Amino acid sequence: MRVERPNGRDSAIANGRSTAPAEVFGSRILALADRLAQHSDTADGLSCTFFTPAHRAVAADLKRWMGEAGLAVEVDAIGNVIGRLRSSKSGAKTVVLGSHYDTVVNAGKYDGRLGILTALVVIEQLKTLKCQLPFNLNLIAFSEEEGVRFSIPYIGSRAVTGRFDPDLLQRTDAMGHTFAEIVRVAGFDPGELAAFERPRDNLQAYLEVHIEQGPVLLNRDVPLGVVTAISGGVRQTVTITGTRNHAGSTPMDMRHDALAAAAEVILAVERRCRGVPGLVGTVGKVEIPNSAINVVAGTCTLSLDIRAPDDRTRDAAVSDIHHEIGCVAARRGVAALIKELMRMAAVPCSPQLRARLAGAIARAGLPIVELPSGAGHDAVMFDGLTEVGMLFVRCGNGGISHSPLETVTAEDADIAARVLFDVLTNWN
Amino acid sequence: MRVERPNGRDSAIANGRSTAPAEVFGSRILALADRLAQHSDTADGLSCTFFTPAHRAVAADLKRWMGEAGLAVEVDAIGNVIGRLRSSKSGAKTVVLGSHYDTVVNAGKYDGRLGILTALVVIEQLKTLKCQLPFNLNLIAFSEEEGVRFSIPYIGSRAVTGRFDPDLLQRTDAMGHTFAEIVRVAGFDPGELAAFERPRDNLQAYLEVHIEQGPVLLNRDVPLGVVTAISGGVRQTVTITGTRNHAGSTPMDMRHDALAAAAEVILAVERRCRGVPGLVGTVGKVEIPNSAINVVAGTCTLSLDIRAPDDRTRDAAVSDIHHEIGCVAARRGVAALIKELMRMAAVPCSPQLRARLAGAIARAGLPIVELPSGAGHDAVMFDGLTEVGMLFVRCGNGGISHSPLETVTAEDADIAARVLFDVLTNWN
Repeated sequence: MRVERPNGRDSAIANGRSTAPAEVFGSRILALADRLAQHSDTADGLSCTFFTPAHRAVAADLKRWMGEAGLAVEVDAIGNVIGRLRSSKSGAKTVVLGSHYDTVVNAGKYDGRLGILTALVVIEQLKTLKCQLPFNLNLIAFSEEEGVRFSIPYIGSRAVTGRFDPDLLQRTDAMGHTFAEIVRVAGFDPGELAAFERPRDNLQAYLEVHIEQGPVLLNRDVPLGVVTAISGGVRQTVTITGTRNHAGSTPMDMRHDALAAAAEVILAVERRCRGVPGLVGTVGKVEIPNSAINVVAGTCTLSLDIRAPDDRTRDAAVSDIHHEIGCVAARRGVAALIKELMRMAAVPCSPQLRARLAGAIARAGLPIVELPSGAGHDAVMFDGLTEVGMLFVRCGNGGISHSPLETVTAEDADIAARVLFDVLTNWN
Repeated sequence: MRVERPNGRDSAIANGRSTAPAEVFGSRILALADRLAQHSDTADGLSCTFFTPAHRAVAADLKRWMGEAGLAVEVDAIGNVIGRLRSSKSGAKTVVLGSHYDTVVNAGKYDGRLGILTALVVIEQLKTLKCQLPFNLNLIAFSEEEGVRFSIPYIGSRAVTGRFDPDLLQRTDAMGHTFAEIVRVAGFDPGELAAFERPRDNLQAYLEVHIEQGPVLLNRDVPLGVVTAISGGVRQTVTITGTRNHAGSTPMDMRHDALAAAAEVILAVERRCRGVPGLVGTVGKVEIPNSAINVVAGTCTLSLDIRAPDDRTRDAAVSDIHHEIGCVAARRGVAALIKELMRMAAVPCSPQLRARLAGAIARAGLPIVELPSGAGHDAVMFDGLTEVGMLFVRCGNGGISHSPLETVTAEDADIAARVLFDVLTNWN
């Protein structure tokens, strides 16, 4: 395929550092994100959870914008907004661009939406320049990724990839409404949800642009990063049972303090994960039932969240941490019970897509930084169906996300759009 | 003074190891404790908090029993049940025996009440044997020591010692009732509370029998212990502020994890207090606002409770722990804010009373074990008014107290009564 480009490879679009109007794509992306952020479940701040009125208003905006960009748009039974651009090439495969439009509670404006809007402005530009692509291009704005309302994430991309579990229809949200009711109230037919199946499309690739949600690119002083893999996560709880005692009348050498044992575990997790590239281990929650300032903790439950870009690295860390928990328990005369809540395999990004992204970044005159994604993304659901690739955009403000403090600059959004445009228009 | 005793110093009463009917005092003490435990705020278990109907029923039983033991009894305006036995000796001073009859929620039967009932059976025996004492003897069953209902402890002994703060009248309980209302509903006149003043009585001593509420005597295999001091306590909170981050996307070396810093503090407290006799340090509470399994803790508040039998030892430990908190904070790039909630000075027990108790224990053929009280007791309020002494009774079941699992044996209660009788009847 050949793209009509006024100036060839070093065109305004393909090279973010050259002659294009400064940040025209970036400022538009940020303006559109601002417009979407006006729809919120709450009067203050941004919360846009699955199938609320605000969520439907965002979908309506996206549907309209995709139509104006020349896409054939439908909203599927789970609320995904899907825009399609068919290739004139016969037997063309399909490249999917996607990310999600739902948010966490009290969210930032860019998590998920940056990827949708970056793809949108690129598609607008494809239309403006009358580019012909050698593949069908689908842009999917997934309706649910964060897992806020039904405590299960990736609902939108699960459906599209044929992984929707009909048992979910009976699950209730915090208000006691079932999933099926919520779907019906939003104007959809829960009966249609059973029809989702593994796509018969001949997929070429899945590509997702997303803010990094971390500080790595910021610390490296680069706007973009190529994701090597989406880390696999293990989540467990560790319940330590010692002896609840009076804090005044129990000498130090007669204690079996569950919280002191937990403190050793917290530091062991940190120690084990430090220094191994891509490996992260977190104790985020500690709960002591009936805790009191003057009572030695009898029981303490802590959470473990261990992730790595490859499962072997992660499992070795989990195993070493379990061994250390056993040593702490034996030394302190406490019991430790480990319960697994979740285990997700790592998803490696396709070497070909990594190379395509790296090539476009290099052509934009930027250094190539590769990094794993410690957070999960819709891309995970496409593992096994097609090649998966992700482009990270620098997150400002120390890398804070899932927060109103989340920021992306127009410059960085702009260069992300130019790189995505380059990847799509230089596919062969 | 001379006590009429059938067999002189080695009488059935004065020597627990000789000819008395086995455990006659002990079994009566436990039976009376069982009867008091039938009055509870709750249908299940024992909870007897300030000025509830159950609490008034306990006071009525105690008043009746004290009267039957030959005491002149009154119930003062704060619900203390006070029985008086006047000495025939002119100008006699007063020895106060006391402990409290309120309980914590879901309590054991002996905390507080053991001391009242031990004194009661001793007084019954003084009456039976027509003993004359060279001092007036007051038995005070304090109405409130645990601090459950109004979050302030020692209300009964505060009043008796002229330390009652009238501001307390406006304080509300968890149901929103003011202290003054509670007093009125219980049939007392809140106006009288202002009349409490530092006792004009010429006090000789304050003596309290109490279960140890810890495992020391149990581990030493002895029924009784002489308290050396009631430890002074410092209670503080430490709020650590790091950076709240995504647990997946924040590399280990870019974190400022408030909980990991807290873990270091927890272990520093334990390390500093271990091995110093009588010194105890506890972190009993850890709170992480909006904690989540997949979020690095941004803020964490932990409690400190540091106690020692002398204030210098305690303050040195607090100072070292603060220094260590500063080191942890600097190393981890987090902030630490320390807030003091409470500071109570240690109360040393009188050497004379310690010697009296030790003498009686030795005469009973038992080893003398001295230990500090890490828990506070009504005795604290008598510091500065008169000599203070305490006798600890072994606590079974690993030393567990403030729990239905709290136990005392009839044998141990019995020997406590015999030792108290010996102390009172061999005062000179």
